[in-house]
Amino acid sequence: MAGMVGAGQLARMTAQAAIALGVPFRVLAGEAGDSAAQVTSGVQVGDYRSLDDLLSFAAGCDVVTFDHEHVPAGHLRALEQAGVKVRPGASALGYTQDKLAMRDLLTALGIACPRYAPVKTAADVAGFAANSPRALPGPDGPASPRPAEPPPEAWPVVLKAVSGGYDGKGVWVCDSPAGAAEVLGHGVAVFAEEHVPFSRELAALVARSPHKQGAAYPIVQTVQRDGICREVIAPAPGLAPELAAEAQALALRIASELDVTGLLAVELFETGAGLLVNELAMRPHNSGHWTIEGARTSQFEQHLRAVLDLPLGSPELAAPYAVMANLLGGDDPDVYDRYIHVMAADPAVKVHFYGKQVRNGRKIGHVTVLGDDVTALRDRARRAASYLRWGTEDGD
Amino acid sequence: MAGMVGAGQLARMTAQAAIALGVPFRVLAGEAGDSAAQVTSGVQVGDYRSLDDLLSFAAGCDVVTFDHEHVPAGHLRALEQAGVKVRPGASALGYTQDKLAMRDLLTALGIACPRYAPVKTAADVAGFAANSPRALPGPDGPASPRPAEPPPEAWPVVLKAVSGGYDGKGVWVCDSPAGAAEVLGHGVAVFAEEHVPFSRELAALVARSPHKQGAAYPIVQTVQRDGICREVIAPAPGLAPELAAEAQALALRIASELDVTGLLAVELFETGAGLLVNELAMRPHNSGHWTIEGARTSQFEQHLRAVLDLPLGSPELAAPYAVMANLLGGDDPDVYDRYIHVMAADPAVKVHFYGKQVRNGRKIGHVTVLGDDVTALRDRARRAASYLRWGTEDGD
Repeated sequence: MAGMVGAGQLARMTAQAAIALGVPFRVLAGEAGDSAAQVTSGVQVGDYRSLDDLLSFAAGCDVVTFDHEHVPAGHLRALEQAGVKVRPGASALGYTQDKLAMRDLLTALGIACPRYAPVKTAADVAGFAANSPRALPGPDGPASPRPAEPPPEAWPVVLKAVSGGYDGKGVWVCDSPAGAAEVLGHGVAVFAEEHVPFSRELAALVARSPHKQGAAYPIVQTVQRDGICREVIAPAPGLAPELAAEAQALALRIASELDVTGLLAVELFETGAGLLVNELAMRPHNSGHWTIEGARTSQFEQHLRAVLDLPLGSPELAAPYAVMANLLGGDDPDVYDRYIHVMAADPAVKVHFYGKQVRNGRKIGHVTVLGDDVTALRDRARRAASYLRWGTEDGD
Repeated sequence: MAGMVGAGQLARMTAQAAIALGVPFRVLAGEAGDSAAQVTSGVQVGDYRSLDDLLSFAAGCDVVTFDHEHVPAGHLRALEQAGVKVRPGASALGYTQDKLAMRDLLTALGIACPRYAPVKTAADVAGFAANSPRALPGPDGPASPRPAEPPPEAWPVVLKAVSGGYDGKGVWVCDSPAGAAEVLGHGVAVFAEEHVPFSRELAALVARSPHKQGAAYPIVQTVQRDGICREVIAPAPGLAPELAAEAQALALRIASELDVTGLLAVELFETGAGLLVNELAMRPHNSGHWTIEGARTSQFEQHLRAVLDLPLGSPELAAPYAVMANLLGGDDPDVYDRYIHVMAADPAVKVHFYGKQVRNGRKIGHVTVLGDDVTALRDRARRAASYLRWGTEDGD
């Protein structure tokens, strides 16, 4: 029995993968109506912040894994001390809960991240900006400061919550010390990070098992808007093979150094000076939803194989290109009629609905299309996604 | 809410498809441990032979469909009279329950079947054999009887149960009147059918919706042993395009003439004289399991779309070839260690386990491999299937 703490769409799609593998699967759901709880026979309703609930859930499981990184670190250690196979382990997961510690470790390992610094006050942020000249060449070539005059201060500065952020939450782009002061006024622990002039965003997805077997998916391009992933293109078009290999090796190395079991998604900035690590996630990841149809082994099956210490599946592409677009809710909660239009307009689009209440901007599903013409695929994926938000203000 | 009567592997894989579609799904299971009941949140335990159980199950469903054809015909009509959307309908399903009526209808429609006749006694069977000269050319060319002497009697004769047979059960190949007499002694209603000298077996899988939209999958070759499907190759290698088109058109026509809603699988004999219809099934079918990975739309998703009257999905191939092999249980009930070997030996093989107790010869799962070299794919699929029966007597 594999148990997943959390019952969102990641757990829902993991449940689907468990059916084919023949692996008994259960979720710890906050509510009986949660996305995964709707479709799984093994549901325990409980609170991931309660050690009692976690322990009673774990009692019926051979391994426990997670569809989010919010289980308190102390509870993770307590589960391990109680003999529960927690995968990924408390030590690895800790780095997804403390982004400052993650950056310190990666830096110690010689892995390039955006420049960053802990900050407590607006003066700290201003100091960071003053000491962060734009030394990195942008996508259009070198942009080094001229040595004859002092470098300009590097605004904007990004402030990030040390823990708990996702989908653009917990990230603030500040144009001035006053903007930074306002963010700091929220009382959330943050650190400062340079606003990287990246040419695009990439993601590396790898799996690692307790046996230390590793598998790396092709590197993908992710397209964000307002901090939310909107589109993923697999493989990243035009990515130099040596850069793709470097990104895969980087992710496998991080998985190994942090002793990750299960999936590791590494969000990357591609810059003129190379790859910088942006974020880590140790679970199935939005940048890997395309693998359900687009790879021989879906990320959900792969995560189960990895945490159960089964031989990993092939991460090979099942088509020249796969494009995934997230379906975001619009103003109209009744998407059913428009859903039928999506199906009718493109019989080969693969729709995944998460069974979630529609709210404007909420991820309620995704679509994937496969083929060989990446421009046509992006058009099809975007059309399906925009059908569902029809009439809703959106930059698409 | 879509409800499926029956909770075997077909319902299990339909449940998996329902998750992505976002369609609430429930099963009427004979036992709580049934294959589909293990993995679905919506399970009602009940008896498909009880009209009360069927009515209470149907009360919560927008449509009711089936993973087998054993619901009594009178109950199907009663459900329809009670206003339940039964898909396929009682009239269409009736032809899967009365194979003699099915052959009579197909014959009236001018659709070629093997020669057949109702029989009650061994003398009837002998008379059928005497009047069924081998007029059909075999795979190696014409084998017409010489006109100068009386034709030999056409033994063996196949006796088939009028209803209820599957996986070789309900089919007897009789070499003599004595053999026929023994079968007739069982007291099962049977009819006689010529033993067709086919070159191979094919299957045509189509979907039809209440809107009358149709979709046809590529024609596949099926390989049987002891009446059990062992292997499916999609598309059927070397099949003449005009014969493939004829088989698709034939299946779509049968679906239309019989007013089928949902899937229709037509099992065919390929002979030197053309195609003969062997059996019909109005549900997801073993010959279509390859579609989960091998087609843009799996047969399970397609069945749900069809019975819910949603636009049908693309039946296009996702790879040049897909080969599926059924996993049959062997003497050793503990397949888990061997399962790991299958995964390790071929990371790209897709394993589907049904959560069934292992019994020798029982279908406990299937594997699918995709690629462009059909010989290599058949080898890989067979190797995976035989790993799991390792040590068990088998002709492989």
